[in-house]
Amino acid sequence: MPQLTVCRQEHFNAAHRLHNPAWDDAKNARVFGKCNNPNYHGHNYNLLVRLTGEVDPQTGYTFDMKRLSDLIKAEVTDRFDHRNLNLDTEEFRELNPTAENMAVVIWRRLRAVLPPALTLAVTLYETDRNFVEYYGE
Amino acid sequence: MPQLTVCRQEHFNAAHRLHNPAWDDAKNARVFGKCNNPNYHGHNYNLLVRLTGEVDPQTGYTFDMKRLSDLIKAEVTDRFDHRNLNLDTEEFRELNPTAENMAVVIWRRLRAVLPPALTLAVTLYETDRNFVEYYGE
Amino acid sequence: MPQLTVCRQEHFNAAHRLHNPAWDDAKNARVFGKCNNPNYHGHNYNLLVRLTGEVDPQTGYTFDMKRLSDLIKAEVTDRFDHRNLNLDTEEFRELNPTAENMAVVIWRRLRAVLPPALTLAVTLYETDRNFVEYYGE
Amino acid sequence: MPQLTVCRQEHFNAAHRLHNPAWDDAKNARVFGKCNNPNYHGHNYNLLVRLTGEVDPQTGYTFDMKRLSDLIKAEVTDRFDHRNLNLDTEEFRELNPTAENMAVVIWRRLRAVLPPALTLAVTLYETDRNFVEYYGE
Amino acid sequence: MPQLTVCRQEHFNAAHRLHNPAWDDAKNARVFGKCNNPNYHGHNYNLLVRLTGEVDPQTGYTFDMKRLSDLIKAEVTDRFDHRNLNLDTEEFRELNPTAENMAVVIWRRLRAVLPPALTLAVTLYETDRNFVEYYGE
Amino acid sequence: MPQLTVCRQEHFNAAHRLHNPAWDDAKNARVFGKCNNPNYHGHNYNLLVRLTGEVDPQTGYTFDMKRLSDLIKAEVTDRFDHRNLNLDTEEFRELNPTAENMAVVIWRRLRAVLPPALTLAVTLYETDRNFVEYYGE
Repeated sequence: MPQLTVCRQEHFNAAHRLHNPAWDDAKNARVFGKCNNPNYHGHNYNLLVRLTGEVDPQTGYTFDMKRLSDLIKAEVTDRFDHRNLNLDTEEFRELNPTAENMAVVIWRRLRAVLPPALTLAVTLYETDRNFVEYYGE
Repeated sequence: MPQLTVCRQEHFNAAHRLHNPAWDDAKNARVFGKCNNPNYHGHNYNLLVRLTGEVDPQTGYTFDMKRLSDLIKAEVTDRFDHRNLNLDTEEFRELNPTAENMAVVIWRRLRAVLPPALTLAVTLYETDRNFVEYYGE
Repeated sequence: MPQLTVCRQEHFNAAHRLHNPAWDDAKNARVFGKCNNPNYHGHNYNLLVRLTGEVDPQTGYTFDMKRLSDLIKAEVTDRFDHRNLNLDTEEFRELNPTAENMAVVIWRRLRAVLPPALTLAVTLYETDRNFVEYYGE
Repeated sequence: MPQLTVCRQEHFNAAHRLHNPAWDDAKNARVFGKCNNPNYHGHNYNLLVRLTGEVDPQTGYTFDMKRLSDLIKAEVTDRFDHRNLNLDTEEFRELNPTAENMAVVIWRRLRAVLPPALTLAVTLYETDRNFVEYYGE
Repeated sequence: MPQLTVCRQEHFNAAHRLHNPAWDDAKNARVFGKCNNPNYHGHNYNLLVRLTGEVDPQTGYTFDMKRLSDLIKAEVTDRFDHRNLNLDTEEFRELNPTAENMAVVIWRRLRAVLPPALTLAVTLYETDRNFVEYYGE
Repeated sequence: MPQLTVCRQEHFNAAHRLHNPAWDDAKNARVFGKCNNPNYHGHNYNLLVRLTGEVDPQTGYTFDMKRLSDLIKAEVTDRFDHRNLNLDTEEFRELNPTAENMAVVIWRRLRAVLPPALTLAVTLYETDRNFVEYYGE
């Protein structure tokens, strides 16, 4: 059967702050600039999830988009939407919530609940002009 | 001379929380839902500014877009970008930072520095699907 | 209190066909061209709803966007999404489902359930490049 | 019958330069900045045309979008697409091709060929973030 | 010579219904949900075609975009635009018109008319948030 | 450490003309069509730059987006923005400024100033519907 990639986009709105607790304030400010603002700032995050695998000849689906949307909601958007990533989530209490680290965390959460036969990639848009892609381990 | 409207879009990223201090926590949670999250959430705000007036026959401009962009930066985006609206700005320390209240505050700041002969309107996009328009007083 | 316009966008996917039963097939084909295809075609419709009114000083809202979204879903998108407008809906069994007629029907359904003090306008996008605006009666 | 606005978007790509021949080079450079570059620069222009009028009960159309598209092509895009506005068009040989002046010229060309009963407005996007609206004389 | 990928986007509007004739109605409804609506629904499909190959040093083109656009029109959009995929097209009379199956059909039609030296990939957007990519056999 | 791709989008507006000086006017007109217009035309170019590499555990960055944006400005947008590519730039005085050739030139300029450990790819959008991708040598 042909291999195809199915893609689904979801979004969430969150506050965050970039900060490395191992550094003093001056170094954090120098490295992270305005993203280090102590009182946080925020983004409308767009998340694109890509699954690659064979088409099921019965359904004509590689993976049901509705089910994919439900899984993304359960694993990612219900967890991060309208939250402060640094304060309200376990994942980023210690880990700096850069787009890179967020993409890795999201990939791992989704990987755990998706069929192993499907290849997974995620793209996380922090803004329309800044985004990261993670193709996995 | 013909009357035209010139439009310029800018953007900023901020954290906020919807909250009325005159109400108890239960009422705030009921009215504002997840937008009331105590630790804030955030948005990529898009701001569209519209100026209506006559075209200057010398320049062919109603208003120089570069100068409009500079004024928006000085009055709005430098002030709100990468800030926590509730904690880091004078305007929203007492005033609930709903899109409606933000549009009014932004309109007033811009009105004060723009030529009185020009009509001003602002559109503030909290997300692509939620936005407000303010045509002024 | 200031008057503001709050805007909310929703979408639905539907099949339709443009056809005037009072005309013969040749005239329908001549007037409506490929939109007259007997077996229907379809669109991803985007609907923008605008409500204008005073800001409530308690909430900082002109109208709660969440409640607006729920009303649009109940009155419009649950009704038309994944339907054949000509065959599956009462509204367009007799009435030609042009974007113009759809905008009027949608405006009337929403007008009936929204507070009379608020002014209502709708924009219906048939495609990104073809759309109609209806400001009401 | 209800009054509706039908909207159609078209685009064209053109070179231009902002310049007032009554001024010396220094003043042109000061006023128009990099838009005054002697060898021109260019844009992907998007043009949005809005027509307001009654819905025809026979067709359900305010105006046939296909016919509107054809008129915009004949009057605007075939004329300006892949041209140098300053050198290749009669309209802007003397008139400075600012977005404002372009919107007025386009409005007048379309006004001349559209039914007088319909109200006409045009929006010309020079970029996604800079645009002008002209509602006519 | 460097290898580059040239990309061209086209669109078409079609009605369809997801359905497996080997299953009974209950199973079809359970698997395909509202996409199984007997009277069809529809979409504005966006199609992105990617061709990878060497740049011709005479033209500076990998492939002429105008010719690519013409081929896509002849092979895909003229065939599917304003049609009911299930009823009006040979390809999907038996084959379930999921985005996956559509991408494979489109890829094969284009592959047959494009130079073998160029690698072909297609992306088919059913909506802005649901799409599939096919990189070929 | 995980390998990630960070992406940054910038834009510039330029005039250009497609032309091969080794051919006569008739052949140039036949091959390049309206893109061969002697007085130039123009575009709003969007440039997407992708860098792939390991995440730095100290910063959580693959590469600082602010620094990437500054490098793109210095190497590309300050050089090409509001210019005539054929007349005002060294790179395209002899080389035909097709999107393909532009992508290669931009890739080489960026490659020279970026850390060798990072893989570089660029996408250049001439319009929303015509674009090229270059993954390098």
